[in-house]
Amino acid sequence: MPAVSREIRLASRPVGMPAPENFQLAETPVRAPQEGEVLARNLWMSVDPYMRGLMIDQKSYAQPFQVGEPLNGRAVGVVVESRHPDFRPGDHVFHMLGWREYATAPAQAFELIDVTAAPAQAYLGVLGAPGLTAWVGLTRIAGLKEGENVFVSAAAGAVGSVACQLAKARGCRVVGSAGSDGKCAWLRDVAKVDVAINYRTCGDLTAAVGAAFPDGIDVCFENVGGAHLEAALTHMNVFGRIALCGMISGYNSVEPPPGPSNLALAITRSLRLEGFVVRNHMDLRPQFRAEVSALIREGRMHFQETVEHGIERAPAAFLKLFTGGNAGKMLVRLAG
Amino acid sequence: MPAVSREIRLASRPVGMPAPENFQLAETPVRAPQEGEVLARNLWMSVDPYMRGLMIDQKSYAQPFQVGEPLNGRAVGVVVESRHPDFRPGDHVFHMLGWREYATAPAQAFELIDVTAAPAQAYLGVLGAPGLTAWVGLTRIAGLKEGENVFVSAAAGAVGSVACQLAKARGCRVVGSAGSDGKCAWLRDVAKVDVAINYRTCGDLTAAVGAAFPDGIDVCFENVGGAHLEAALTHMNVFGRIALCGMISGYNSVEPPPGPSNLALAITRSLRLEGFVVRNHMDLRPQFRAEVSALIREGRMHFQETVEHGIERAPAAFLKLFTGGNAGKMLVRLAG
Repeated sequence: MPAVSREIRLASRPVGMPAPENFQLAETPVRAPQEGEVLARNLWMSVDPYMRGLMIDQKSYAQPFQVGEPLNGRAVGVVVESRHPDFRPGDHVFHMLGWREYATAPAQAFELIDVTAAPAQAYLGVLGAPGLTAWVGLTRIAGLKEGENVFVSAAAGAVGSVACQLAKARGCRVVGSAGSDGKCAWLRDVAKVDVAINYRTCGDLTAAVGAAFPDGIDVCFENVGGAHLEAALTHMNVFGRIALCGMISGYNSVEPPPGPSNLALAITRSLRLEGFVVRNHMDLRPQFRAEVSALIREGRMHFQETVEHGIERAPAAFLKLFTGGNAGKMLVRLAG
Repeated sequence: MPAVSREIRLASRPVGMPAPENFQLAETPVRAPQEGEVLARNLWMSVDPYMRGLMIDQKSYAQPFQVGEPLNGRAVGVVVESRHPDFRPGDHVFHMLGWREYATAPAQAFELIDVTAAPAQAYLGVLGAPGLTAWVGLTRIAGLKEGENVFVSAAAGAVGSVACQLAKARGCRVVGSAGSDGKCAWLRDVAKVDVAINYRTCGDLTAAVGAAFPDGIDVCFENVGGAHLEAALTHMNVFGRIALCGMISGYNSVEPPPGPSNLALAITRSLRLEGFVVRNHMDLRPQFRAEVSALIREGRMHFQETVEHGIERAPAAFLKLFTGGNAGKMLVRLAG
C-alpha cells in the first residue's frame, strides 16, 4: 500500500472564470481500508461542467464542494486492497471519489466495471454518466420520436456527441453546434450529423439555426443556454420539447445572464422546457447501456477523448471545458 | 332583421401599449343568413390578453388580426334568424365573432349554451375559455397534486381567480399575486387564498414570494412573466412544474424583454416549464364544466366581472387588461 496520495482541493470559491489559484494540489496519507472497505488506485478521473455549480456555496441537487476539502467526481480505478468479499485486488471499479490518486471508502461506494467490453475510461464517457445524460434527455425528457428534427448544442462534447448519434440512430435529422471547424468536421464526417454550425464563425446564430432547419425544430437538446437557447426557441415547432441539460455559457457569469427574450414563444407554440440531472434517472441505465453498447459494436457510435496527464493537470483539464479546449470527453489520466 | 351592425376594426398595428387610434368603430350592413347559416345578436363579448399577440403580424397558433378588418374573439349572443334546423330565434349561442353587434355565419360557428344553468356571460369567463384555461393548466400541464404549494400570478384575473379556487378545492396551499389592495382583499376574503401579494407595493417580489412559501413552490401558474417568473423560479421545489399560460408583463414591450436570469435553476432543480393554449385541450371541457359547475353550486367558486357598456367601449375594455383596470373577467356588454 502506498503511503501518500495526491489530491486537488478547493482553495477558494471561484468568482467568474475559475483560475489556477482556486485549486490546491495537496498530499494526504493513504488510509488503509477497514473491515468492509476498499482501497482503489484511480486510473482516470472525469471533469464535467456541472462541477462549476458545486463550487458555489448554494443549495443544489448535490452537496457543494467545501473550501479546503478535496473535490470529488466520477473516476475509474483498480482495487489495491479489499476488506469486502465482493472486491478483489485487480478489479476495475467506478466510483465518485475522483480528484485524487487513491480512494478508500466502504464497498458500497464502488461498482465493478467490465473492462473487456470497453476501455475503463468509457465508463466516464459514452457508457457512463455523459452517455446516460444524452439518452435520458432525448428519451424520457424530450420524448424523441423517429424522424424528428433535432438541434443539439455543444454537439461535439461528451454529452452532445452521444445525443447526436442517438438521434441519428432513430432516423432523425440532426443539427449540431460546436465552437471550432475541427469539431464541426468531426460532427459531419464521423457523427454523421446533417448540418454542423460553428457558432463562433457563423454570424447571427438565430439565422444560422433557421437556415439549418427549414422545417423547424421538434426537439432541442440544450447544453449551452444563452444565445443558443434563444436561437432554438425562435425556430421551435408547435409542441416542441427542449431538454435542458446544461447552460454552460452562463456558468462563469459574475452577473446572472439574462434569459431568452423570446421565452413567451413557449406559450404560443405549446413548448415544453424541462431540466434534468442524470442522477434522478439511474433506472434507465440498463436500457441505455444495451442500446449504446450495441451501437458501439455496430460502428454507429463514435467518441472522442481529450486527455490531460497527472492529477496536477486536473484543474487545467476542468478549465478547458469552458474555453472549448476539449473535443469529446475531457479526461485526466492518473495512472495505468 | 336590423340593417346595420357596428364593429371594431384594427386601424393600425400597435407598437408598445395599444392606443385608441389603433382601433376604428365602423358600421357595416347586417348580412342575411343563407341556407345553413345563423344570424345572432351579440349580448356580451370578451376581451382577453391573448388578443394583443394577434395584433402583431406573425405566425402564431391563430391567424393574426388584419388591418382594416374587424377583430374577433369570444362572444355570446341570441339567435335572431336561423336557416339551420338546430338553431331557433331566441336560442343563446357562444361563438368567436365578437367585436361586433351582429354576426352571420354557418351554423357550425355557433354553439348552444344553457343560460338557465349560468348567466350567458359566464360562458366567457368561469365556465368558458378562461376557466378551462385554469383547469387545463393546473391539471394536464402542471399535474397538480392534492396538498401542493401553488403560486398563481395575476391571481385576481379571469384565469387566475379560477386557478386559485381550483387549487384550494384540491387542498393546496395557494398564494396569489395581484396589483391592488382591493384585488388582494378579494383573493383573501372571497377566493380564500392563503396569502395575497400586492406586487406593486410589496417591495422586492422575490423576497415576498419567498416569505409566502416557507416550504417552496411545487406548481406555478404563470400569467405575468418577467419579475414574477424570476421570483417563482427562485423558490421552486425540485420537480416543480410551471404552467406557462401568459406573460402579460411583456405583451406591450417594444424591445423584447429579457427572460428570467435564473432559468438555469430549471436544470439543477429538475423543473418543467410548459406553455399551452387552451384551444388544444378542448377534450377536457366536459370534466372541467362538471367540476366547476359543482363548485359554483356549492358556493366554492366565486367570480368577479368588470363590465364596459357598448361596442364603442370595447377598445377601452381591452386596454384595461394591461393597466390592471379589471377585477376578474373583463367583459363588454353589447345588448340585452
